[in-house]
Amino acid sequence: MSSADLTSADDAGSATAGRDPVVVAAERARRASHGLALATRQHKDMALEAMATALETHEALILAANAEDIVRAEASGTPANLIDRLRLTSDRLAGMAQGLRDVASLPDPVGEVVRGSTLANGLEMRQVRVPFGVVGMIYEARPNVTADAAGICLKSGNAVLLRGSSSARSSNAAIVSALRGAVEDSGLDPDVVQLVPGDTHDSVKSLMRARGLVDVLIPRGGAALIRSVVEESTVPVIETGVGNCHVYVDRAADLDKALAIVLNSKTQRTSVCNSAESLLVHADVAEEFLPRVVAALQEAGVTIHGDAAFTPYDGVQPATDDDYEAEYLSLDISARVVPSLDDAIVHIRRFSSQHTEAIVTEDLAAARRFTAAVDSAAVMVNASTRFTDGGEFGFGAEIGISTQKLHARGPMGLTEMTSTKYVVTGDGHLR
Amino acid sequence: MSSADLTSADDAGSATAGRDPVVVAAERARRASHGLALATRQHKDMALEAMATALETHEALILAANAEDIVRAEASGTPANLIDRLRLTSDRLAGMAQGLRDVASLPDPVGEVVRGSTLANGLEMRQVRVPFGVVGMIYEARPNVTADAAGICLKSGNAVLLRGSSSARSSNAAIVSALRGAVEDSGLDPDVVQLVPGDTHDSVKSLMRARGLVDVLIPRGGAALIRSVVEESTVPVIETGVGNCHVYVDRAADLDKALAIVLNSKTQRTSVCNSAESLLVHADVAEEFLPRVVAALQEAGVTIHGDAAFTPYDGVQPATDDDYEAEYLSLDISARVVPSLDDAIVHIRRFSSQHTEAIVTEDLAAARRFTAAVDSAAVMVNASTRFTDGGEFGFGAEIGISTQKLHARGPMGLTEMTSTKYVVTGDGHLR
Repeated sequence: MSSADLTSADDAGSATAGRDPVVVAAERARRASHGLALATRQHKDMALEAMATALETHEALILAANAEDIVRAEASGTPANLIDRLRLTSDRLAGMAQGLRDVASLPDPVGEVVRGSTLANGLEMRQVRVPFGVVGMIYEARPNVTADAAGICLKSGNAVLLRGSSSARSSNAAIVSALRGAVEDSGLDPDVVQLVPGDTHDSVKSLMRARGLVDVLIPRGGAALIRSVVEESTVPVIETGVGNCHVYVDRAADLDKALAIVLNSKTQRTSVCNSAESLLVHADVAEEFLPRVVAALQEAGVTIHGDAAFTPYDGVQPATDDDYEAEYLSLDISARVVPSLDDAIVHIRRFSSQHTEAIVTEDLAAARRFTAAVDSAAVMVNASTRFTDGGEFGFGAEIGISTQKLHARGPMGLTEMTSTKYVVTGDGHLR
Repeated sequence: MSSADLTSADDAGSATAGRDPVVVAAERARRASHGLALATRQHKDMALEAMATALETHEALILAANAEDIVRAEASGTPANLIDRLRLTSDRLAGMAQGLRDVASLPDPVGEVVRGSTLANGLEMRQVRVPFGVVGMIYEARPNVTADAAGICLKSGNAVLLRGSSSARSSNAAIVSALRGAVEDSGLDPDVVQLVPGDTHDSVKSLMRARGLVDVLIPRGGAALIRSVVEESTVPVIETGVGNCHVYVDRAADLDKALAIVLNSKTQRTSVCNSAESLLVHADVAEEFLPRVVAALQEAGVTIHGDAAFTPYDGVQPATDDDYEAEYLSLDISARVVPSLDDAIVHIRRFSSQHTEAIVTEDLAAARRFTAAVDSAAVMVNASTRFTDGGEFGFGAEIGISTQKLHARGPMGLTEMTSTKYVVTGDGHLR
């Protein structure tokens, strides 16, 4: 029996008439995942290269499909910034193809021995990385996620069910059609890359209930999307990306560094989860630092929502708890003066989304206390919050940034897209 | 501000009148967890030693409380095997105390650097193990789990909310009271070890909805308990312990080894998740192996539920799909003859709970194919399924055996009770 036979032998009871099309798709993904899990790195990299080429050769088709999405979005009054995120260009498509080639160049996480030893009784035990099996991605506007997620899942040996936003449905269909053709031409089952059928909320619900067929769901998008998946899914979820990130300027901060880090964390890019949303300043340096940081932020176009210490400054809005809780994703920042390092920590515990927090200090004890007591996916010392990123961390590819504590925390690369199993070899060993 | 001050400063808005007592307990656990996360190994080991001593010094009280549970269980007609699991003795208490001392002797997982490097721009990145924070345990009859779980959680820096079975409520209350006294005497916040208040199902529901206060829930017990937690919880769950484990006797098996492994896997202990529930035999060796294995299993008191190949044998029951799906946990085994290795793999994919499967073979290619294609937490080659166990794997302590793919898979020791965070240190680094 070949590997292909083994896969088809598993194809019991899957007549599709009248059944939930999402469940049917998930069953096909499950069957296809068995073969993919056994595929060599060589074979997977060949498929990734073919997928990259397919995006290039299908450029005209994909851009035409994208134009349909753009027309529909404009007709329904979609804001310009969302239309920009939806738009594909020749350059953006080339970037997606390059992304697939970059993933091909990364090591294969599958088969990595995480730990291993020979037990006292002579049993050889190895803990080995294996794919999850079937991954469900639920994501919003940007169609480039479709190719990125397909590439990362394929390389890590996982079949993927892609549920993009309905506003990008034509683009996603054209991209997935190109990718599936390339996968099939490479001799792998094209059902390792599928769009979730249907674009109503019912299809998301079916995906969230497909426990046993789907191994993990990864929602990427706004806070509301992520919360609804976390609350409704019976499939295990990896929560991503809500970032209410803080910069704390310590009593012992170098204030030049502090100013640069605050500006970079807030303004280098505002629409991303690792940008800063809140500034905490130690009272001892407030008198010197506040005039400088207020002027610099305002010059950069940032609106400050500050506590009482900021009232002397023109243009500063009074801050409420809602401000301290906000993930603005805009040129806004909440700000507060704190009497001590530990008060900064308490503030962060209360309001942070546990994504990334930074301390600016030259005091080793303060840095040690902050990094030990702040429980976030990433804690920066004298560095911008913007460094929490799979690319910056050298992971080569990123499927999202986990803000939960189970399984993966922080930027998720190929390694985080795997589980493990124990392989134990003996010679008739009994207990 | 001392560490204790930091903890109490976090104590905002927790007036308890009229509030859900489970939420109040979870808030107390959350606050207590902050101090515990920063405790040194020395401090935690001192507390574990004090907890062990407290079980010994409170022996009379704990055994008296246990006697109340036994009387109540007998009055309500509880079966003898469950009463035996509920019963504490001087020896069993000594075993619980020794378990706590064993945990003290294990390395502290908190602070372990999982990976680290200096990035191209000079940023120093370290991924460090940290506690989850607050762990919820939901478990059935055996009161020894109360002490085991408290010890493992404390050592891994986690506060624990213990929700044992109502049949063990007096025993659990006495054990937790002794442990909390010891924790407090050691200078740690006793709220790191708490019983969940109330013993109705409502308290379990509250625990399952305490997202944000409880970081992970671990159900340990029967399949129905675990399924209900998995389906209803919005707190992330680690699924444990349902084991429909298979032994596959390959065409190339050494049949003496095979016989010994089948018997050991099935009969060495029947009530545990890593005992075998199903036997698959390659058709080429059925004629020689079936008479031997049927005789040996029947001599050991095992009832065989077999397919058509087993009908010639007296006392064999005909097998249905329900048998192939069953986790008997008794002296029963389902059995089937398969025409090939790959048919064994297909059978396992369909019926296994992905806990542990074993192949018996002298053929390297068969062993490689089976270990690659069978997607279970543990795959044994020429060894009993009974080896899937934290103790056997050398973990020193075990909180359960995960049968899910997210976070931890297989036996979970101290390491699996932690998350990680990235600590990134720079000198004014900007993007």
